Amino acid sequence: MLKPSAVAGPLNGVTVVDLTRVLAGPFCTMTLAELGARVIKVEAPDGGDDSRQYGPFVNGKSAYYMSLNRNKESVALNLKDAADRAIFEDLLSHADVLIENFRPGAMARLGYGWETLHAKYPRLIFCAASGFGQTGPYAQRPAYDVVVQGMGGVMSMTGHPGMPPARVGTSVGDITAGLFSAIAINAALYHRAATGEAIQIDVSMLDCQVAICENALARYFATGKVPGPSGARNPSITPFESYATADDYMIIAAGNNALFAKLAELLGKPDLATDPRFDSNDTRTKHAEALKAAMEAVLKTQSRAHWFALFDKNGIPCGPINNIKQVAEDTQVAARNMIVEAADPVAGRVRMAGNPIKMPAFADPHARAPSPELGQHRATLVAELEAARAR
Amino acid sequence: MLKPSAVAGPLNGVTVVDLTRVLAGPFCTMTLAELGARVIKVEAPDGGDDSRQYGPFVNGKSAYYMSLNRNKESVALNLKDAADRAIFEDLLSHADVLIENFRPGAMARLGYGWETLHAKYPRLIFCAASGFGQTGPYAQRPAYDVVVQGMGGVMSMTGHPGMPPARVGTSVGDITAGLFSAIAINAALYHRAATGEAIQIDVSMLDCQVAICENALARYFATGKVPGPSGARNPSITPFESYATADDYMIIAAGNNALFAKLAELLGKPDLATDPRFDSNDTRTKHAEALKAAMEAVLKTQSRAHWFALFDKNGIPCGPINNIKQVAEDTQVAARNMIVEAADPVAGRVRMAGNPIKMPAFADPHARAPSPELGQHRATLVAELEAARAR
Repeated sequence: MLKPSAVAGPLNGVTVVDLTRVLAGPFCTMTLAELGARVIKVEAPDGGDDSRQYGPFVNGKSAYYMSLNRNKESVALNLKDAADRAIFEDLLSHADVLIENFRPGAMARLGYGWETLHAKYPRLIFCAASGFGQTGPYAQRPAYDVVVQGMGGVMSMTGHPGMPPARVGTSVGDITAGLFSAIAINAALYHRAATGEAIQIDVSMLDCQVAICENALARYFATGKVPGPSGARNPSITPFESYATADDYMIIAAGNNALFAKLAELLGKPDLATDPRFDSNDTRTKHAEALKAAMEAVLKTQSRAHWFALFDKNGIPCGPINNIKQVAEDTQVAARNMIVEAADPVAGRVRMAGNPIKMPAFADPHARAPSPELGQHRATLVAELEAARAR
Repeated sequence: MLKPSAVAGPLNGVTVVDLTRVLAGPFCTMTLAELGARVIKVEAPDGGDDSRQYGPFVNGKSAYYMSLNRNKESVALNLKDAADRAIFEDLLSHADVLIENFRPGAMARLGYGWETLHAKYPRLIFCAASGFGQTGPYAQRPAYDVVVQGMGGVMSMTGHPGMPPARVGTSVGDITAGLFSAIAINAALYHRAATGEAIQIDVSMLDCQVAICENALARYFATGKVPGPSGARNPSITPFESYATADDYMIIAAGNNALFAKLAELLGKPDLATDPRFDSNDTRTKHAEALKAAMEAVLKTQSRAHWFALFDKNGIPCGPINNIKQVAEDTQVAARNMIVEAADPVAGRVRMAGNPIKMPAFADPHARAPSPELGQHRATLVAELEAARAR
């Protein structure tokens, strides 16, 4: 057995061999590392993870790469070279999980397909994260985030009617595939602990986009109506979107009749709650534009700060639309340790998003180990493997 | 021990008691049920899960509710009534996981805070999913999806510059909290199998929004620049967005130099790849608008079908922007069993998104058990608990 990670967490003692690059896979293994797994990133010697080339750079080191690879080790191995393959296979013999995001078939061509690996390493869980999955007519097509955001439906519902398409402002095509992969790997670890059996996992970015369409598919099948973009408005709940005040937009989400009646009273328009157009969530959703106009006529007479103070005191769910600077400076974000940092030997002090899985049994330190240079841990890992073999 | 779920999966044998309503919690427990856990939904007798009231309805049953609660059982219990509390506590004594999404403090007021439960049921994992978390200055504030989408930064980067705010077209505020909760619960099940210890989990919707800001926070800390909305354009990779053709928009994602050179050649403009404005991802991203104009000048001379056939044959990542109807009819989506159905006794044939976690060791049937009526399984569960007590 190899040494455990220095990070305390429920997965401490688990070793993950990580062949993934850029975003979906690295987001998954970052999450596993936060939970205490030891993550060993195996990179191609000629440049390594593509995201090392994505700007902006801090002293030449990619901020994009650094935000996803803290707490990991890096070993550069050429999987077509016999000596490096021997190191890789030695590593697999100690590993609990292997994750890769090559095109389907690439691992088998390297001699590392599921059947081969499962026969040789019966305790190894194998997760493949790909664009379209290991099966089906598109399996061999290349995919990136915006391709599956487009194909999976979420872009068709994002943005404003009549405007050019808009993507989700963060790479949810990759990120959701990383999250579903992390769920699958943890479930497989539990299953192996319960039964001794290691299993294969096949996660596709497109499948994950379909899964997060939420009730849009159910609504379409129920009504035959195809949802389009609706700005900031929720298609099922009203009032539940952004509204203009005298000086800025704010979010108001009065998701049931009691909250709406309270909101109407605070706006000085109690009659809205008994107006037959607005007396249930269903009727409010049918007359969302009329309701928005009636609400904004009042909201525009005062500042956002005024309304926020009034609504907050009275329990109406509401809030600002924060930009990234405001998120970084928010007191709740700070109180939850959601901005963490690493002391990087190249880039200096690096700040990035923290871990949203809070488990009071384990520490959630403010400092993270920095993301590794390409191949930084090869020598120590090789020595560790040799020592393990000698035992 | 209670009976396992009829669904085969890595969590078969695990029992989850589910106090959650609407979306984040039910999305989490739907995922656990897909993995083979038995999920027992404990609902308030006066109406149950709020989402039962969200339209559209099929024969009076909510499509929204049905899309999230397949494969679950429902028991209506009043947690302020002594007889019902006895049933609830009996159920907890057999359960592996309890999940709730009340406001922080509500469970303790019911006598079911973590310390109390952990002392009485030392094997019970406890997950609280809330708007802002159990700690920090906003802990008692109410939150819904669009509130945390606004506060967490993703809305500030979604949509078009100069336009009113746009939300992500699906409820990622809830869904990502559901996904991180599912990761946490699985990790805790593994930890309990490895050590015998059951732990407490605290997931906040706002924290999860910060976590999916991805490299936006890292870019801001590296450069001091605050990212805004950019339509369909990825802020780090170019070309990587939607482009207009003669008849429709399409996605093109040529994320590295080799792909871009190939794309330039296929457009009949090989010089683009050596133009100093466009010769690296970094320079292309700096001159994204000029590059888009140059590409669209050619793309608009032919139909999307023409370009799609050409690019697809040559390995350029590309695709359509599918609406929900097109997603539902896509051949890859069908081949991956990503639209599943239930035979609902009230609503008839119900179709909804499938499970994106594919594990070849377990079946992925096309049929799911229908979502339960309020309290449908109370009598059978009470009988099962009595039989377990008699043993």
